[in-house]
Amino acid sequence: MGFVRYFCGMKDSTYPYPVLRQFAHDVFVKIGCSPDDATLAAEVLLNADLRGIDSHGLARLSGYVRLWEAKRVNSQPNVRLVHESPSTGVVDGDQGLGLVVGPKAMSVAIGKARTCGTGWVAVRNSNHFGIAGHHAMMALEHDMIGIAMTNASPLVAPTFSIERLLGTNPICVAIPAGEQPAFVADFATTTAANGKLEILQRKNKEAPLGWIQKKDGAASTNPHELKEGGALIPLGSDRDHGSHKGFCLGAWVDIFSAVLSGANYGPWVPPFVSFLAPPSDPVGLGIGHFFGAMRVDAFRPASEFKQHMDQWITRFRSAKTVQGQPAVIIPGDPEREAHAERMEKGIPLHESVAEDLKKLGQRFQLTF
Amino acid sequence: MGFVRYFCGMKDSTYPYPVLRQFAHDVFVKIGCSPDDATLAAEVLLNADLRGIDSHGLARLSGYVRLWEAKRVNSQPNVRLVHESPSTGVVDGDQGLGLVVGPKAMSVAIGKARTCGTGWVAVRNSNHFGIAGHHAMMALEHDMIGIAMTNASPLVAPTFSIERLLGTNPICVAIPAGEQPAFVADFATTTAANGKLEILQRKNKEAPLGWIQKKDGAASTNPHELKEGGALIPLGSDRDHGSHKGFCLGAWVDIFSAVLSGANYGPWVPPFVSFLAPPSDPVGLGIGHFFGAMRVDAFRPASEFKQHMDQWITRFRSAKTVQGQPAVIIPGDPEREAHAERMEKGIPLHESVAEDLKKLGQRFQLTF
Repeated sequence: MGFVRYFCGMKDSTYPYPVLRQFAHDVFVKIGCSPDDATLAAEVLLNADLRGIDSHGLARLSGYVRLWEAKRVNSQPNVRLVHESPSTGVVDGDQGLGLVVGPKAMSVAIGKARTCGTGWVAVRNSNHFGIAGHHAMMALEHDMIGIAMTNASPLVAPTFSIERLLGTNPICVAIPAGEQPAFVADFATTTAANGKLEILQRKNKEAPLGWIQKKDGAASTNPHELKEGGALIPLGSDRDHGSHKGFCLGAWVDIFSAVLSGANYGPWVPPFVSFLAPPSDPVGLGIGHFFGAMRVDAFRPASEFKQHMDQWITRFRSAKTVQGQPAVIIPGDPEREAHAERMEKGIPLHESVAEDLKKLGQRFQLTF
Repeated sequence: MGFVRYFCGMKDSTYPYPVLRQFAHDVFVKIGCSPDDATLAAEVLLNADLRGIDSHGLARLSGYVRLWEAKRVNSQPNVRLVHESPSTGVVDGDQGLGLVVGPKAMSVAIGKARTCGTGWVAVRNSNHFGIAGHHAMMALEHDMIGIAMTNASPLVAPTFSIERLLGTNPICVAIPAGEQPAFVADFATTTAANGKLEILQRKNKEAPLGWIQKKDGAASTNPHELKEGGALIPLGSDRDHGSHKGFCLGAWVDIFSAVLSGANYGPWVPPFVSFLAPPSDPVGLGIGHFFGAMRVDAFRPASEFKQHMDQWITRFRSAKTVQGQPAVIIPGDPEREAHAERMEKGIPLHESVAEDLKKLGQRFQLTF
């Protein structure tokens, strides 16, 4: 259905957004999701592809289906608020898709912020929720700051360790502005996100030192090192350059997402891939997320806040750069540009992803 | 008053905590603080020395006095809540010492968390608040999670830039546990805190690559580079190793601390040192902080939460380490150990700091 193009020596084809979204929706319906949940899940999933975070979009669709087959995803969850205070809540995702549970929990946070100034929701018993940015950005249209974080399959070794005890545990903070586009910082708390390793694997290129370590903790540039028992490294790369701070960040996300909510944490987080069994001694339910919404006018009038955000953004965007380097990037700029381009020109899919989707289509008698 | 010892070739003397605290208290009274405010300021300041964060303790006392002389610190501030919602507030520090304004604002956050589940307070018109850890840890005794952040004098260049637009903008997250000591992650959002550079300067040693850059953005190992117009580098060290994520973190702290509160942000933050004038075109009032308190039982019963925190901490502490490396450090461990040791054996002060305090003593007719 797409236009073929060649990218980095690999064949990529480009597909219109509405077509891909419909396909994802139809797959979610086939695994038993209600039409509403399927629409939501497809929107969240495709938002990753639109924003250029290819590792978290359609590339994962068959992975979600395999988790459903393994009975580790419940396609008809009863997502419910199990504990609350005026500004907080805990949501049980009933083993649903994080793509569905996430937006529902974030809506609870936004509702609480409306009445209380801020809302904070911890989620247990969920699954991978796509890109953190989608959920945090839900706050923007309400003139709220949005925060989203999640724990994830353990792939990261704390500083000094050889054990994989944390996920890439991303954080997103989305802050509304006035005439400028919103500030949206969405990043893994490791030196490099797993998606960046996948790109190197496909290109058969080496990784910079400081991204990954071997099974025994030695430095490595092999992007396939995780398969050999190696680990990703927290943001900072090594102790001298602050990897203990990256460890702090990943730990913070893990504790807020799972110890507050009653989900699994650390090495007990169930793996995303269905061929690895979850730990046999869980310490909680599923994986955990944490969401926050803060009404800007619970601090100062929204118009004033936005005017200063515009000034903040403009000042940083116009910073003098190192000779030969690009301009300072305001968090969210690259993803917004990708979104605009891909909405207009379509979404490029790597050949292997397109193949994967074709197989899904055949299996569910859907056209791809 | 202390016992002389030799450390790294420099003469350090060791002083009992109560004596140093009394001295700091008396200096604060001499510049006009009320006895209560002086007690509070001395406690916060000395907590840095106790916890081994020497750069943020008594080493800064004469700096605070110079800011007061320059009429940039108001020793009798009317610290007041100028805006609020059930879970939020904005505090105006009336140009007071951050050491006094900080704990008062954090108390507001704790009070709001008591009734509302969480409390979030942005602060404007303040000054340097000592260590973030002090304020965040105030939440612990209430079975709350504490968060503290602050912006600071611009010394950090965003990725690709040669301009110093952000401070070292620290974040602290303090999380209560049960039998284990609390998790307390307190870190600058740069590769290395300024205090680490000061140690290298005193020892005349080079810094690792990735901590600082020259005026033109080139790599540098000269710990004196800031005086030549160079800049600190965000956590991550370079673009390949995620310095854009460190920039995101520092920006997040800046916006929460100052754009939410109405303080100065980015390059407009007034410098800590009195010999540098604040920008002539301020965009807000003083420097800004941001505090949060979350009642643990607004999410799940506190006993359950603490039991799982104990399990989290125990599991990470016992992680297998790289051969020849120390055990995994739980955030807060080194500072707690320093605290215990210094409470018992006294606080070592570098010769130059002791000299500085002696001069202050002479000036205010106080014994040091």
